[in-house]
Amino acid sequence: MSNCACCALVLLVTASLLSVSPSARSQQPPAHINADRLLLHMTAMGEIGKDPVAGYARVAYTDADRQGREYAIGIMRAAGLAVSIDTAGNIYGRRPGSQPGLPSIMIGSHIDSVPQGGNYDGVVGSIGAIEVTQTLAEARKDLRHPLEVVLFQNEEGGLQGSRAISGELREEDLSNATRSGKSLRDGIAFIGGDPTRIAEARRKRGELFGYFELHVQQGGSLDAEKIDIGVVEGIVGNRRWDVSIEGFANHAGTTPMNQRRDALLAAARLIEAVNRVAASMPGQQVATVGRIEALPGAYNVIAGKVTLGIDLRDLQAARMDAMFDQIQKDAAQIAAATSTKFAFHQIVDDQPVLTDPRLRKIVADSAAELKFTSKPVPSGATQDAQSIGHIAPIAMIFVPSVAGISHAPQEFTRPQDIVNGANVLLLSVLHLDSQQ
Amino acid sequence: MSNCACCALVLLVTASLLSVSPSARSQQPPAHINADRLLLHMTAMGEIGKDPVAGYARVAYTDADRQGREYAIGIMRAAGLAVSIDTAGNIYGRRPGSQPGLPSIMIGSHIDSVPQGGNYDGVVGSIGAIEVTQTLAEARKDLRHPLEVVLFQNEEGGLQGSRAISGELREEDLSNATRSGKSLRDGIAFIGGDPTRIAEARRKRGELFGYFELHVQQGGSLDAEKIDIGVVEGIVGNRRWDVSIEGFANHAGTTPMNQRRDALLAAARLIEAVNRVAASMPGQQVATVGRIEALPGAYNVIAGKVTLGIDLRDLQAARMDAMFDQIQKDAAQIAAATSTKFAFHQIVDDQPVLTDPRLRKIVADSAAELKFTSKPVPSGATQDAQSIGHIAPIAMIFVPSVAGISHAPQEFTRPQDIVNGANVLLLSVLHLDSQQ
Repeated sequence: MSNCACCALVLLVTASLLSVSPSARSQQPPAHINADRLLLHMTAMGEIGKDPVAGYARVAYTDADRQGREYAIGIMRAAGLAVSIDTAGNIYGRRPGSQPGLPSIMIGSHIDSVPQGGNYDGVVGSIGAIEVTQTLAEARKDLRHPLEVVLFQNEEGGLQGSRAISGELREEDLSNATRSGKSLRDGIAFIGGDPTRIAEARRKRGELFGYFELHVQQGGSLDAEKIDIGVVEGIVGNRRWDVSIEGFANHAGTTPMNQRRDALLAAARLIEAVNRVAASMPGQQVATVGRIEALPGAYNVIAGKVTLGIDLRDLQAARMDAMFDQIQKDAAQIAAATSTKFAFHQIVDDQPVLTDPRLRKIVADSAAELKFTSKPVPSGATQDAQSIGHIAPIAMIFVPSVAGISHAPQEFTRPQDIVNGANVLLLSVLHLDSQQ
Repeated sequence: MSNCACCALVLLVTASLLSVSPSARSQQPPAHINADRLLLHMTAMGEIGKDPVAGYARVAYTDADRQGREYAIGIMRAAGLAVSIDTAGNIYGRRPGSQPGLPSIMIGSHIDSVPQGGNYDGVVGSIGAIEVTQTLAEARKDLRHPLEVVLFQNEEGGLQGSRAISGELREEDLSNATRSGKSLRDGIAFIGGDPTRIAEARRKRGELFGYFELHVQQGGSLDAEKIDIGVVEGIVGNRRWDVSIEGFANHAGTTPMNQRRDALLAAARLIEAVNRVAASMPGQQVATVGRIEALPGAYNVIAGKVTLGIDLRDLQAARMDAMFDQIQKDAAQIAAATSTKFAFHQIVDDQPVLTDPRLRKIVADSAAELKFTSKPVPSGATQDAQSIGHIAPIAMIFVPSVAGISHAPQEFTRPQDIVNGANVLLLSVLHLDSQQ
């Protein structure tokens, strides 16, 4: 921890540069967090695992991840939280409630990152949640409900920590490899969990009154439309297929255009169709072909076989059904026109998880009360909140990502937007606490 | 050689099964080759390097290639030819002419194959040429011009033997790796050439009166239209480009459809455009995209960069110009519509090689005289004849490839078509010999 304290001191100047201007601060609402402190902690966290060339990296179960966790534990203790690590390696910081027997309000996010990631995905919500408790502590504001800050471990490697809490993490998953090089089992032990008692990390339905997560949008719509706050409607479902297209490999010089069975031409038409189907329907659904392989893959041989991946996402399962129906119809026409054969093999089928209407309204009302513009948005990325959504009411507060860039060193959210989001989080907690 | 003689005996039964029926033979024209012997030698050659699973393989500079060459030399000697190997490793079989000082008529092809190839590409023309000389010897028919049978070495690995004869093979090429695992230099030595004296393999303009090559079409047009003989107009030019498409890699779940810079979508539209441009213009031009790579290549990341290869072929350079102009115009529109950047880098620029009008007419007349249907066709594949076209008048005789399949174990040309082609070759040689 001494290292991290040093970092924080050294980084004070940097953090001050990032902080909001006095004029902006003067517009702060009555219930507000300490913007300078929040941004200072974010900057300090960003230094942990930072690579001057490749960007930010606190990949779960690496030394950098562990150092980041230690830094977070330090500022959680400074905020007066009682810190513990559950058997899955999630970090909890608890603040008691004034009224005995009430379920907890939970807030938090994650501090692990992808390789070559940014310093906003997860960090904004983690440091934001800690700052909310620090603000409450300084204001000597007691809540009726216990307040729990949670920092989920290994969000980027498949929501491992939050899935342990919701009971979705299976014993057999523990042998899986992770990006750190360690197995999930060894990784959990490395960060202080106990993989032999993983089931004890599970939280029961009823233990949590509600969960709020502040997060950067990772998409560009709030930034493009200059909206302060996104009120998340839900985390989109995700369906994925491997598509295999069989044509006939033949000589590119000697096979007339009208006698070809070109699997790559068929694939090109399918890629275009997938895009058209998603872009032409009303709604915020997305469809992507991001991977493709053509065989034999030579300049002078017509492709005999292509495999590609289709990824569909939407908040509505019915709309994903409709998209895939249309894609299959288009594929049948393409197959007939190109004398190729298509085979679809589904490999992912994650259902959408909707946020709780009551908590969503609390977020929207809090944003309005603080004079922020807001709009309902889907979360296109997976989130720890979707695991918690299986055992408790959830809501998410999105703040703009500049140009929608995420999972890259260029990821950026403006300091004022981070502060705004943390203030909405604080007010949402206060409002939920006042409800029955 | 004793091995191969054994093979030939053992294979007699197989060969007989492949031979033309008596009724077909009764329709043979006056000048005709020995169909049974031709087909027997082809079958025997096919056994050399044959893999029961993968197909036919006499890859240049392998043991199978050398065994195939030994078998060919045996039947060339049996046909009364004086056999020699030039410094490049090409096999020559010479028959003297009756009139002193005349240039040679040359006929031949190659017996090396691609890995997992067929037994027709090259073999039909090689065994066909040897059979023509055997037929002339048996008929005690003297030609005015010397007749040379040539079996070019390593056609499939870049026309190496014929390029040595035309003077195109450069000293520095000898260090290049070949499919056999040997360098070109070591490969040439392996088959009895002398890579230190490669320049001596060169033939001068004027030494050859004309060159005829019998070959399978490798494309499907003769087979589809039930035409007996293709009179080759020329060997198409070939232009190739590496195309790089730059978009922006972003999250497939969080990036709205209308904010994407999807390099794979742009690539798909370019593949479609390349096909449309070639298929919509009148003529026999072809255009192919056979290789593609999308990065980072993940299901859930919009492709930020795609590279692909474009291959254009036609007999007319102006038509290739027109195709590429249109492709570039389409690419510019696609780039604008998808917010991507295209860069074209040309890597191959082989000019078309036209056959000689006089020799082409001899082939067409010979086919007509033998009551075969014929039509002018381009050669979409590269051919040894194109090297020889730089130093002598050339013509090629194509026979149908069933379903246009080539460079694959399923490659097949009907026995009757092979026999027809060899008879056209024989008559063409006789006609050219009679000319001044």
